[in-house]
Amino acid sequence: MASILKLKCAICECEYAPDAVTYTCPRCGMIGTLDVLYDYVALRARLDRDLIAASPLQSMWRYLPLLPIETDAVLPPLRVGMTPFYHAPRLTADLGVRAAWVKDDGLNPTGSFKDRASAMVVARAIEKGIRVVATASTGNAAAALAGIGASVGREVLETIIFVPASAPEAKIAQLLVYGATVLLIEDTYDVAFDLCFQMCLEQSWYCRNTGINPFTTEGKKTAAYEIAEALGWDVPDVVMVSVGDGNIIAGIDKGFYDLHQLGWIERVPRLIGVQAQGSSPLVRAWQAGMSAADMQPEDAHTIADSISAGLPRDRAKALRAVRRTRGAFVAVSDAEILAAIPALARLTGVFSEPACAAVYAGAKRALELGYILPSDSVAFVLTGNGLKDVRRAQESVAGGVRVQPSLDAIRRALEK
Amino acid sequence: MASILKLKCAICECEYAPDAVTYTCPRCGMIGTLDVLYDYVALRARLDRDLIAASPLQSMWRYLPLLPIETDAVLPPLRVGMTPFYHAPRLTADLGVRAAWVKDDGLNPTGSFKDRASAMVVARAIEKGIRVVATASTGNAAAALAGIGASVGREVLETIIFVPASAPEAKIAQLLVYGATVLLIEDTYDVAFDLCFQMCLEQSWYCRNTGINPFTTEGKKTAAYEIAEALGWDVPDVVMVSVGDGNIIAGIDKGFYDLHQLGWIERVPRLIGVQAQGSSPLVRAWQAGMSAADMQPEDAHTIADSISAGLPRDRAKALRAVRRTRGAFVAVSDAEILAAIPALARLTGVFSEPACAAVYAGAKRALELGYILPSDSVAFVLTGNGLKDVRRAQESVAGGVRVQPSLDAIRRALEK
Repeated sequence: MASILKLKCAICECEYAPDAVTYTCPRCGMIGTLDVLYDYVALRARLDRDLIAASPLQSMWRYLPLLPIETDAVLPPLRVGMTPFYHAPRLTADLGVRAAWVKDDGLNPTGSFKDRASAMVVARAIEKGIRVVATASTGNAAAALAGIGASVGREVLETIIFVPASAPEAKIAQLLVYGATVLLIEDTYDVAFDLCFQMCLEQSWYCRNTGINPFTTEGKKTAAYEIAEALGWDVPDVVMVSVGDGNIIAGIDKGFYDLHQLGWIERVPRLIGVQAQGSSPLVRAWQAGMSAADMQPEDAHTIADSISAGLPRDRAKALRAVRRTRGAFVAVSDAEILAAIPALARLTGVFSEPACAAVYAGAKRALELGYILPSDSVAFVLTGNGLKDVRRAQESVAGGVRVQPSLDAIRRALEK
Repeated sequence: MASILKLKCAICECEYAPDAVTYTCPRCGMIGTLDVLYDYVALRARLDRDLIAASPLQSMWRYLPLLPIETDAVLPPLRVGMTPFYHAPRLTADLGVRAAWVKDDGLNPTGSFKDRASAMVVARAIEKGIRVVATASTGNAAAALAGIGASVGREVLETIIFVPASAPEAKIAQLLVYGATVLLIEDTYDVAFDLCFQMCLEQSWYCRNTGINPFTTEGKKTAAYEIAEALGWDVPDVVMVSVGDGNIIAGIDKGFYDLHQLGWIERVPRLIGVQAQGSSPLVRAWQAGMSAADMQPEDAHTIADSISAGLPRDRAKALRAVRRTRGAFVAVSDAEILAAIPALARLTGVFSEPACAAVYAGAKRALELGYILPSDSVAFVLTGNGLKDVRRAQESVAGGVRVQPSLDAIRRALEK
């Protein structure tokens, strides 16, 4: 494992001892999300990137020497991470860039990138002897927590999910299948979020809420490690990632930050965050040079529910990720997001949920705006499986050719 | 690659030169599915199982020396196979067996085991310079062909899917997203199947139809290789697999057959096929000692649509698989299948579609009937991702606890 040196607030930069704070910065409150930082000089002396790359473990746990978990800890057994990373020649040609790759994180055990954070949080909970992990979510984070929890068993760990009572029944069904306790709160998501956090503090449950628990980032950073390792530590110029609460782009940023501190990569990629136009507070804050602390709640409306967030919980880290890597934020319309689903599937063979396909539309926009240059190499983080939202995918395509049951009719239909 | 020695009919045992026949046995017709056989003595002299196990390739293509594909062939780029294989201690205890494992083939690129067959068929098509692959299916096989096709690109390969016009729109949507040509035939699945095969013969398209193309089995056999390799070539006593058309159990059987011929495993596991009660012709044929050639079409009704088949297309190989491994066929009710979805998810962390979860109910039945003994070790092949059919999963669980938005109400709800 990597011994934590300190926790550091992403807003006020105050530093805390590893066990002094569990969630956010006591000084800044909920906006003060914490970075988990290591003694990089010591790690650099002790670790060898080639040894790590030689690990036979085909999961995020191959990076255990860089993760805040004891080496002999009980790890959740599901295979999280080491998702496929494909070179995509047709996507490269379509965009007119030097090279393009896609990382299919929809092939994580519960179908999304969020499994990385849940696996890390569950591992931490087990290590600390905590018996309950709770979260407020209706989407991928909840499914990830419920699924990873099920893999270690209710005897070891109970998962409690707070959802607004209005959440779609199909999304709730997946949580119940995994055996999570599901509380349908008769109020908004924000109220469910706050109640979850308060119950965690009161009952000493571990809170997995996005933007609250600093270790979600430590799970998510492994995707950056995997991209770097897959390319022989020669990182792409640009990494594209869709952004709702901002925790995934924060995780990717942290991963490249770690590797750069270790001297394992020579530079960090520019991170380009893609938001839906109807939910793009980070795009505007970035354009206006606004600080995270000054951002105000807004209404959010987009078909890409996984990135719908009026006041992104991890806005501090997300803004910093783009600023310190000299990246950008771009917004794309719901129509562009829908069209991106079949476009990306046909160029790569990967079927994405709307929030995930948004990165393709975002790359087109970033090329127009000069944030991506034709000389750039670009990696796309595909965050969620298309099977998560087939109904939206249905809106993105027309309906096949109806044919009478005869060879003649088929021949005629195909000539058209 | 492995040079094909001969093709051999599973019914009449006639043998053909590798290029003499493309689909089924000319003597037996559609029921005469063919085995692709190799010169096992020559392979045994040339190959080393430890060298194969040392391959860095994390996909089914690590077994290229045992597959009927040229080593320098263009292979579809998606990561098919090498799906997770989990030891499942709680499932072991629940069943009261010596050991249990689950193989999560729902984490293949399009979410099902069928990707193995489609990857093999697409690789064969590319190698032979064929530009169109067609299939009749509404389910996992169609999605697999469309997805694997999309990964190589329409410039290289076009996929044409024949579906009955009554197929669910969501299933059709996934095919269209991948860019397949979808023909909605105004008739039954069987008519669509026959029209597809006739068009393939007429147009020299490659036909992927289950039970027609002998190479689907050659793709599916890789799951057996992976199970054997994961256990250090010490295979389980029993392998459980759900059965509709019978092609998956045939593939598993072929994989263990190959390994046994090579002398890489000392014995073959008993294969236990699980059917839904409303679609269980193989259970009855096996119980009655009937030959595949004598089976007649029946009506099939089950909620587990992936294993609904009134006259299983690969009945010859499926019956043989169970008979020659001294396995069994068992039937389980739709209610048992539904209940198996959450049971399996909670015991293993894997969320399965109904047809896939059926293996858990089947194991319970097999234990009652003495087909599995407490001293046995059992591997479960989980063939399809739960996200493929969330609607059915919804029927398997009750709906969470509705709570007023207060800490008091939450505390009270959790005490119950």
